[in-house]
Amino acid sequence: MAKEKKLVEAITSMEEDFAQWYTDVVKKAELMDYSSVRGCMIFKPAGYAIWENIQNELDRRFKETGVENVYMPMFIPESLLQMEKDHVEGFAPEVAWVTHGGMNPLQERLCVRPTSETLFCDFYKNEIQSYRDLPKVYNQWCSVVRWEKETRPFLRSREFLWQEGHTAHATAEEAEERTVQMLNLYADFLEDFLAIPVIRGQKTDKEKFAGAESTYTVEALMHDGKALQSGTSHNFGDGFARAFGIQYSDKENKLQYVHQTSWGVSTRMIGALIMVHGDDSGLVLPPKVAPTQLMVIPVQQRKEGVMEKAAELCGRLGKVCRAKLDGSDKSPGWKYAEQEMRGIPLRVELGPRDIAENHCVVVRRDTGEKMTVSLDDVETVIPQLLETIQKDMFERAKAHRDSHISDAHEYEEFCEAVSSKPGFIRAMWCGNQDCEDKIKEETGATSRCMPFHDQEQISDVCVCCGRPAKKLIYWGKAY
Amino acid sequence: MAKEKKLVEAITSMEEDFAQWYTDVVKKAELMDYSSVRGCMIFKPAGYAIWENIQNELDRRFKETGVENVYMPMFIPESLLQMEKDHVEGFAPEVAWVTHGGMNPLQERLCVRPTSETLFCDFYKNEIQSYRDLPKVYNQWCSVVRWEKETRPFLRSREFLWQEGHTAHATAEEAEERTVQMLNLYADFLEDFLAIPVIRGQKTDKEKFAGAESTYTVEALMHDGKALQSGTSHNFGDGFARAFGIQYSDKENKLQYVHQTSWGVSTRMIGALIMVHGDDSGLVLPPKVAPTQLMVIPVQQRKEGVMEKAAELCGRLGKVCRAKLDGSDKSPGWKYAEQEMRGIPLRVELGPRDIAENHCVVVRRDTGEKMTVSLDDVETVIPQLLETIQKDMFERAKAHRDSHISDAHEYEEFCEAVSSKPGFIRAMWCGNQDCEDKIKEETGATSRCMPFHDQEQISDVCVCCGRPAKKLIYWGKAY
Repeated sequence: MAKEKKLVEAITSMEEDFAQWYTDVVKKAELMDYSSVRGCMIFKPAGYAIWENIQNELDRRFKETGVENVYMPMFIPESLLQMEKDHVEGFAPEVAWVTHGGMNPLQERLCVRPTSETLFCDFYKNEIQSYRDLPKVYNQWCSVVRWEKETRPFLRSREFLWQEGHTAHATAEEAEERTVQMLNLYADFLEDFLAIPVIRGQKTDKEKFAGAESTYTVEALMHDGKALQSGTSHNFGDGFARAFGIQYSDKENKLQYVHQTSWGVSTRMIGALIMVHGDDSGLVLPPKVAPTQLMVIPVQQRKEGVMEKAAELCGRLGKVCRAKLDGSDKSPGWKYAEQEMRGIPLRVELGPRDIAENHCVVVRRDTGEKMTVSLDDVETVIPQLLETIQKDMFERAKAHRDSHISDAHEYEEFCEAVSSKPGFIRAMWCGNQDCEDKIKEETGATSRCMPFHDQEQISDVCVCCGRPAKKLIYWGKAY
Repeated sequence: MAKEKKLVEAITSMEEDFAQWYTDVVKKAELMDYSSVRGCMIFKPAGYAIWENIQNELDRRFKETGVENVYMPMFIPESLLQMEKDHVEGFAPEVAWVTHGGMNPLQERLCVRPTSETLFCDFYKNEIQSYRDLPKVYNQWCSVVRWEKETRPFLRSREFLWQEGHTAHATAEEAEERTVQMLNLYADFLEDFLAIPVIRGQKTDKEKFAGAESTYTVEALMHDGKALQSGTSHNFGDGFARAFGIQYSDKENKLQYVHQTSWGVSTRMIGALIMVHGDDSGLVLPPKVAPTQLMVIPVQQRKEGVMEKAAELCGRLGKVCRAKLDGSDKSPGWKYAEQEMRGIPLRVELGPRDIAENHCVVVRRDTGEKMTVSLDDVETVIPQLLETIQKDMFERAKAHRDSHISDAHEYEEFCEAVSSKPGFIRAMWCGNQDCEDKIKEETGATSRCMPFHDQEQISDVCVCCGRPAKKLIYWGKAY
């Protein structure tokens, strides 16, 4: 029992110190490790397998909408990065610079891509000639580098994994349609696959992407009440096209600028999974994204027939879900603690008495609920149970999120809410950036988004300055 | 007709200028484009889709052998690269150096990984404590950077995509077994999936990987008679473990060094596909790796019912292979030329007369053979035909390779063979590097490998110096 205790005691409780709990979970669930390059992390097998599942599912959904994958170089010449004014201002302060190739200094230094708008524009400039070449709906899976000062595993690291889609269209309408389409694709993915409810909305000008005309976002709420921007989709209008000279001849043979979009999600989503679903026993993974959905754990495994029967059961379950058998020489209690720490959705316990009675004990990771299931029924019961867990986890996260949304009509109420009610705060805004700046400076809350599906006018005046209000904003402290 | 001509005429013939033919194919088949960073290439959708198919199949085969995927940082601190003497000597001259992060110079410069042995060793050093932690069989899919002076699309570029496996084992035997296992996995993959026959063998000390105890290789022969190293697997013994201090306590609680391996294949394989199977009409892809296996091309598509019937046929074929319909407004001849250029294994032509007669015309890309197939039989005929093509392409490539192997017993004969018989030259070697150096310098041929499955003693003496021979070597000019 000493060992089990050690494993479990090693996690700080969420209530005690949420940040430390998070750090404990990423380490103890063996999702990542720190590397000898400060701010860069190692994705260990358990962490990378989650990313692979995310990739496979998203990639499938992308391709259904006509996305084609490509791969661009990881380096951007300094002159290319500087082609679009807002963009370079946004990114130049936080890029890593390559100055030497082999023994020789480079003629022009290269930055390691922080994002690849400029590379795609440079490519599209030659690739697109006629309206027949449009639309271009390209995506790449890669890593990007941003030289951040403060880093946290999955949430903010100097190198992270992501996908970045970059499209070019004939018309402004088509570009806008694609921008919204991809945002909705992200939202549906987060809700269906990761069981993370999100608020869909538009960023204010202050918070939008460097060089974008408009940025749409999906915002999720973590267990501690902080928001996490979980995916963004940008409409560039023809701004980049004008800066790079990306033109096509239309059907009347007239030269037109293309309209562009870009959109991305990253390994941050793994951070969201941890902070939305995790508990004091560790990670809790929704079945759809869990690399292992079920762990068979034999009890009294040295008794005759137990291991054979457990292996047979695992073999049968392997046909209906991603099942594994823990046949190591650790104690059952230790194995339970490990399975819980790793967030595996279901545990199946099987001992001599269970075998004699032709059943097994099934334990849900998300609720701890134990049930006895006949060995004749496992192939039908387990998949249903996985579906139920997926659905319940979403509903629980949604209930938590909804119970952490409060309204503020006046500035004092707003400040009070920020300090005492962690979560989203709905409040009206005049549209002036000064108010956003003031709120951020004085309370630490930022404007998360102007929601698409919640246009309620909760007051006539701006919560900050009292002038006529234009927009409802979801505010919150954020990662 | 002018358009079709233009597309076809734009390729230089292989016989006229093989290098130019290659460049024409990679561009005209839209596999890649050049980027604004010299020596770095853009993988366009048609090229990247081939890589995705390679990745999916290899990844599946890896996982069957117990491989787990991870992701390491792309940066290596200079001090870490220098830990193993041979390794740093091999790679330091051709790495890209990051010297600044944001606005500030770094305290220690970082190289962009040319390969990740040092990062994995640094990680394993902490990760491995006990025999229970072994083996570690990790792999990553990523891009690496080598600052080459001369570059060619897919074959040698400053950044390329690959996978690198890095394993740690308790014993030398186990490491050796994994090294050979992965080499055979590569060989089987190249032969079964890419239809590229290979020679499996060991590199000489001169040609082995920087820091390895032994390097195994698979060598393929291109259409022009040059060899292409298509995959390598390295046994490091405990060299890196000693340099990095990677030790574990064995069952008797004694400290032991681990034994390590690494193995990789890259986007070079796309170059091999082009140069083994391509012809004067462009790319020819083996069905298993072809992103699109069949193109349905309607004839007289404006005639009533043709497009509908073509779409219906494509829908049916889409259930048994990766089928597409070219419904664009180009002429059939133009579409044929495009389908040929892109190497799509089968073309299905369907016009009003075919429909009236309830058949379609099926054309093989690899042989040009045309056949009439009843519309009732397509679902059974097409998959069989794809299998036949896959098999025939391998056999044809093997016959070509085998007819380009010659033996040399004396030095003059060797020199004569290098200059007049492109291909592999089998010749005996004394084991002395001076002879290898001399042969390379005087003839341009390098030792490709000491083959596993061909141990014939074709002569008693070294082809170069006449001293007693130790090993049969396959020599050749190589990419």
